[in-house]
Amino acid sequence: MPRAAYFDNNGTTALHPKVLQAMLPYLSEQQGNATSRHMYGRSARNAIDQAREQVADAVGAHPSQVIFTSSGTEADNLAITGVANALGNGRIAVSCLEHPAVSRPAEALRWHGWILDRIASNRHGQVEKNALEAILQNKTDMVSVMLANNETGVIQDVAGLGELARKHKAYMHTDAVQALGKMDVDFASLNVHAMSLSSHKINGPQGAGALILDKRIDIQPLLYGGGQERGLRSGSENIAAIVGFGAACSLAVAEARQGRTELARLREHLEQGLRRLDAVIFGAEAERLPNTSFFAFAGIEGETLVMALDKQGFAVTSGSACSSDNTEPSHVLLAMGIQPDTARGAIRVSLGANNDIDEINAFLQALESELTRLRKLTAVAV
Amino acid sequence: MPRAAYFDNNGTTALHPKVLQAMLPYLSEQQGNATSRHMYGRSARNAIDQAREQVADAVGAHPSQVIFTSSGTEADNLAITGVANALGNGRIAVSCLEHPAVSRPAEALRWHGWILDRIASNRHGQVEKNALEAILQNKTDMVSVMLANNETGVIQDVAGLGELARKHKAYMHTDAVQALGKMDVDFASLNVHAMSLSSHKINGPQGAGALILDKRIDIQPLLYGGGQERGLRSGSENIAAIVGFGAACSLAVAEARQGRTELARLREHLEQGLRRLDAVIFGAEAERLPNTSFFAFAGIEGETLVMALDKQGFAVTSGSACSSDNTEPSHVLLAMGIQPDTARGAIRVSLGANNDIDEINAFLQALESELTRLRKLTAVAV
Ligand SMILES: Cc1ncc(COP(=O)(O)O)c(C=O)c1O
Ligand SMILES: Cc1ncc(COP(=O)(O)O)c(C=O)c1O
Repeated sequence: MPRAAYFDNNGTTALHPKVLQAMLPYLSEQQGNATSRHMYGRSARNAIDQAREQVADAVGAHPSQVIFTSSGTEADNLAITGVANALGNGRIAVSCLEHPAVSRPAEALRWHGWILDRIASNRHGQVEKNALEAILQNKTDMVSVMLANNETGVIQDVAGLGELARKHKAYMHTDAVQALGKMDVDFASLNVHAMSLSSHKINGPQGAGALILDKRIDIQPLLYGGGQERGLRSGSENIAAIVGFGAACSLAVAEARQGRTELARLREHLEQGLRRLDAVIFGAEAERLPNTSFFAFAGIEGETLVMALDKQGFAVTSGSACSSDNTEPSHVLLAMGIQPDTARGAIRVSLGANNDIDEINAFLQALESELTRLRKLTAVAV
Repeated sequence: MPRAAYFDNNGTTALHPKVLQAMLPYLSEQQGNATSRHMYGRSARNAIDQAREQVADAVGAHPSQVIFTSSGTEADNLAITGVANALGNGRIAVSCLEHPAVSRPAEALRWHGWILDRIASNRHGQVEKNALEAILQNKTDMVSVMLANNETGVIQDVAGLGELARKHKAYMHTDAVQALGKMDVDFASLNVHAMSLSSHKINGPQGAGALILDKRIDIQPLLYGGGQERGLRSGSENIAAIVGFGAACSLAVAEARQGRTELARLREHLEQGLRRLDAVIFGAEAERLPNTSFFAFAGIEGETLVMALDKQGFAVTSGSACSSDNTEPSHVLLAMGIQPDTARGAIRVSLGANNDIDEINAFLQALESELTRLRKLTAVAV
């Protein structure tokens, strides 16, 4: 079976060949546990230290601010639950647009007496400052707003929101999992105390993520044990994955930055075609990541279209991807005020370094014929 | 620099070449996120399902009982904190011999109103049934006793202890991280509700572990998000690591079982030599894993000996390894009633499939000359 055109780079990315090269020694030779003091252990420790610098460098942070985790999800949970547990009790505000890795742990805090506020989105998928400001009229301890949305690609004014949060003495977290590699990300200028990253979204391996944390913030670990990561995240370090994450971060600065213009060009070509087919493109009027397009066609179910395109050799997702089986319409679109019926039609194309214009053209052609076919079916059904 | 003889297989193991082979396609080709419905996603999902069967098969469990985690530490934390959070409040008993991945989360429960009891060890490093029985006179909700100790290799009568715990209606967990691959491990016959495993201790990759869990047990996730692992452990699955863990589990049954006789033979040869050098061997009178030897020499500091042997090309650890910098004497030895001075002398050799008799002979020779040198130094110092 030929491999399909892969348009799900916000879901996960292919490992960059240079990243695999960097990882292979740590997979094929005897390695030590990084806590052991013998030469194998010290060499593992050195590899982790180097990766820590690479990750820090990619986001303008200090290596001592990097806490390695197993995923973006774990970094988000640590940022929310770890800080909340250190605070005890309080009030948290998260945007309506968050990935479940942020919104679900925030909801879980309510079982322990926290109050949860939701910061609304406008119809472009943006969190406006005045929405946050209104919420901050109540004494709020924690705020979390993502830097770029995984479904629409819409970029938030985190620096502005962070300034507001700080003015109100709230801890500010941002989920930068989708932003890293696709836009410049600078920890210091974002005005946040904490930021989550994930390796497998930037052509690094699965199994590594990081929380970048201002060291003045009190935090309780989620995982207790051998005391790795300054006691904040125990567990034998996943050395190969951490090394790969470090290498991918360096590439995200060196190579991916140049790639963004090309991604934007491909996406523009795609969206011109989509508009010709009468697609609604969500968040198109806001600043977006250069690789992401989230759209729908009136009367066509997204899930049906995804399966049909899959058969034609195109790997795209519906709005509800990125989490386990779920046929609810995208919470992001509902938060943007999109009607459930329209939202149920959403499909996402997220481009990556491996895509080219021929794939886009082939995709547009397949899409057109599937739309014709499905519309006929629908017409018959009615 | 020539590579040293690696005697720290309880710390971490080399990846088995067949495991790396099984993983490589998942590292070098485009993969999907296992939650995506397109062909890349389905292929990732299938790979995870197969690994789940391999892990289940290796320990006589059902695939639906396997919850994949990022490490043994995470599995232990989920087994303790996840179950405790579902219970609310109560009383937990853990043995004095546990790895910090069990004892630290158990200690943390006290901050939330739990009562923590410690089950004592006898001088052979064994938890006796009557020690647990005495504790169970108080209504106890959770019990955790490891199957094999990482420092001494001593094997516990978990089946017997589990029977006791069940009789008293307590939830029973065992940390089988060190046991897997080095002895037969059968979930059902151990009389436990939950069991932790780790991939990198059995020649699998770092970055994967599992909690085997009786599905009747209520548990709260530590990581919330996309709802992976039946909602019990969110986060994009680390497909390559999970595939590698599955392959390593199959090998642990097929190959490692035969290897145990050889490991036992090598260890016997080692310990004969150690006894000639007047070593105290800890737990030697108890049933032990075939690969582990934990010993000390009167008047010689373990950490000093580890560093000296490292220079000679032998990678061993002191008792306090497996967690971050720590110069306290081993809590395991103290729990066995060993004097702190003796305990501070402890060093551990943990053998693996890659070791041979020549390495052991070279090690014994190097040890003898280092002991002579260090004893002279001590004599001068006095
Ligand atoms: C915005 C966002 N946050 C968090 C995550 C979770 O990261 P990971 O897949 O590394 O657990 C994802 C991806 O699924 C995401 O898109
Ligand atoms: C008995 C025991 N439990 C748990 C762990 C932790 O497992 P992992 O290294 O996979 O986090 C270890 C090893 O460090 C161990 O020896």
